[in-house]
Amino acid sequence: MDKIIYLDNAATTKCDEEKLALATKYYNDYYFNPSSLYSGGRKVSGDINSFKNALLGKNRFRKVILTSCGTESDNTAIFGFSKRGNIVTSLGEHSAVYNPFMKMKEKGIEVRFAKLTEGGFVDIDDLLSKIDNNTCFVSIVHVNNETGSINPINQIADRVKQINKNIIFHSDGVQAFGKIDYLLGDNVDLYSVSAHKIGGLKGTGALICKQNLNIPAFILGGGQENGVRSGTENVLGLKLFADVYTERLENMQKNLEHVQSLKQIVIDNIDKTLFKVLSPIENASPYIVSVSALGLRGAVLQNMLDDEGIVVGTGSACSSKKPYSRIISSFTNDPKILNGVVRLSFAPYTTYEEVKFAVDRLNFNASKLSEKIN
Amino acid sequence: MDKIIYLDNAATTKCDEEKLALATKYYNDYYFNPSSLYSGGRKVSGDINSFKNALLGKNRFRKVILTSCGTESDNTAIFGFSKRGNIVTSLGEHSAVYNPFMKMKEKGIEVRFAKLTEGGFVDIDDLLSKIDNNTCFVSIVHVNNETGSINPINQIADRVKQINKNIIFHSDGVQAFGKIDYLLGDNVDLYSVSAHKIGGLKGTGALICKQNLNIPAFILGGGQENGVRSGTENVLGLKLFADVYTERLENMQKNLEHVQSLKQIVIDNIDKTLFKVLSPIENASPYIVSVSALGLRGAVLQNMLDDEGIVVGTGSACSSKKPYSRIISSFTNDPKILNGVVRLSFAPYTTYEEVKFAVDRLNFNASKLSEKIN
Repeated sequence: MDKIIYLDNAATTKCDEEKLALATKYYNDYYFNPSSLYSGGRKVSGDINSFKNALLGKNRFRKVILTSCGTESDNTAIFGFSKRGNIVTSLGEHSAVYNPFMKMKEKGIEVRFAKLTEGGFVDIDDLLSKIDNNTCFVSIVHVNNETGSINPINQIADRVKQINKNIIFHSDGVQAFGKIDYLLGDNVDLYSVSAHKIGGLKGTGALICKQNLNIPAFILGGGQENGVRSGTENVLGLKLFADVYTERLENMQKNLEHVQSLKQIVIDNIDKTLFKVLSPIENASPYIVSVSALGLRGAVLQNMLDDEGIVVGTGSACSSKKPYSRIISSFTNDPKILNGVVRLSFAPYTTYEEVKFAVDRLNFNASKLSEKIN
Repeated sequence: MDKIIYLDNAATTKCDEEKLALATKYYNDYYFNPSSLYSGGRKVSGDINSFKNALLGKNRFRKVILTSCGTESDNTAIFGFSKRGNIVTSLGEHSAVYNPFMKMKEKGIEVRFAKLTEGGFVDIDDLLSKIDNNTCFVSIVHVNNETGSINPINQIADRVKQINKNIIFHSDGVQAFGKIDYLLGDNVDLYSVSAHKIGGLKGTGALICKQNLNIPAFILGGGQENGVRSGTENVLGLKLFADVYTERLENMQKNLEHVQSLKQIVIDNIDKTLFKVLSPIENASPYIVSVSALGLRGAVLQNMLDDEGIVVGTGSACSSKKPYSRIISSFTNDPKILNGVVRLSFAPYTTYEEVKFAVDRLNFNASKLSEKIN
């Protein structure tokens, strides 16, 4: 493959080859079914517990349910706890939360959406106004996958439970996990994470839960994961997930500083006569910068850059079949902004040179496209 | 790791290291999110279709839904189509079918179980007597995972649909896929398969469906797998699954002959004064041979062999937390037989010497244990 500049790391990021090789070595040696009662099976079963423990990081009194992806984690939480009354989320959620909420609506549960403010933050006052005694479940994304805005989920969970202590509070942490520094607060009951956003395998996810929380079963069968999630465990994916997360934790501050400087390159160098920066400067994950090429089409710019070997996103890859972003359109309704969204998202190994070059080419191509249109 | 003799290949089998290395190479190069619209994403998306096509083998007019395991495939089929009236299965099902059926029972759907005959076959007359105009879904395992008995699912599906053509017919093919030779009949609507039973990864499965069948969504989100199963696709697992299945298809007859001779070694050499062979001789997958050490405990024998580096099963690993086999106990109620179940299951790379040695040690240890008890 030709060398490309890959700036769509929020959609997925390159697998950590070295750690994958190590996990493969482990998996080739310890191929036993972890449900088996002979020594090989018990060894793998014990290792699974260690791998899960690594995923908890500094978080205590939590347990890990291994799933096949962040989407499954979200579905497990939402379908497990949306039982009656109303359920509340925001307009800034990934479709893995949004679509299950819409499914619950079909089933007759009242669904309430909190507004977003500029930059994609949840409007906390609006959210709290929607919580009442009949609310049974609340889900608020931690880091918005299109703008990088960070919602203060611990504080939100505290305030939500001040209104109704029986609510189960969930957060989709897929864009936060291994990337930004935090400790889950006592009132965050459930937290969804995914491996392939931080160098693990596609097909590996987890739901981090309060230790004493009884999770309704989502996939039924042999009773793995304490009966919550049956199916033979994805041992290779889990080991790699634990390994890449551990390294991300160790290098958290160093990575954050590096990626923050990448974000700054975009902000400093993007042509302000052609682009508007949509991502917030403060309280945002530096791993994601969304801009809009005003009056142009982001998808066309994406294609022009792709032809030059530069890969950028246009919003959530998972909803790429939709005309434009549900999330961005919930805090702006200017079609000139909505059509032009381009998302740059970074990995710790992304270099200054790559980002600088990509921004230059973005400017160049936007200018060319703009001349053609006007 | 010390060299062991591994005879629990129906629980899981060693990963094909060479093909895993190839799939890893592919995955490291083509790490793009298949939902992305740039060239890298489109390349992976196209490859996913090719990999799925390989999983169809000679079966035409079918489509493949990628799942995370055979259990998820079974759950998708059962929860998707068990909507009203009654649903029918057999007493010989894996817990990935049995437990979802019990869940539907909780939800008020009438659940009917067909009996088994000696060796673990579905009693077809009993099954047909349970089908009526209110039956909406039928699930019958293809190869019984504890005895290896093969149910004639094409014939069964035909006869079921003669009674009620609106029924959706599903079969769990996890122990058949890539192991025995067959072509799915027109009346088999849904068929569950799994990668790690044939050298693929744990955490990869598929649901093979009639092309025109509209499958209700099981996991909701970004709309992958035509909306049936959202979540970023497990590209590495899928490629490996396609590769190992293709090789299994190519070597089907050769493997079957080899494994048949392994089964014969067990039948010829197991001490008939100590053991009863539970697996059928005819109409059975040679990959699985269950025997019972009469009056002894299978789990104790399993441990004794484990100490000698020989790994055997005691029934489905997935239900190893249960006292004894739900499946075997549905065609025999003699506790002397039920307690003593030991399952030997093979892979194409299992050798004559390994099986002969394991049977000798089984005989020796059963004799020792028998003397100790009597």
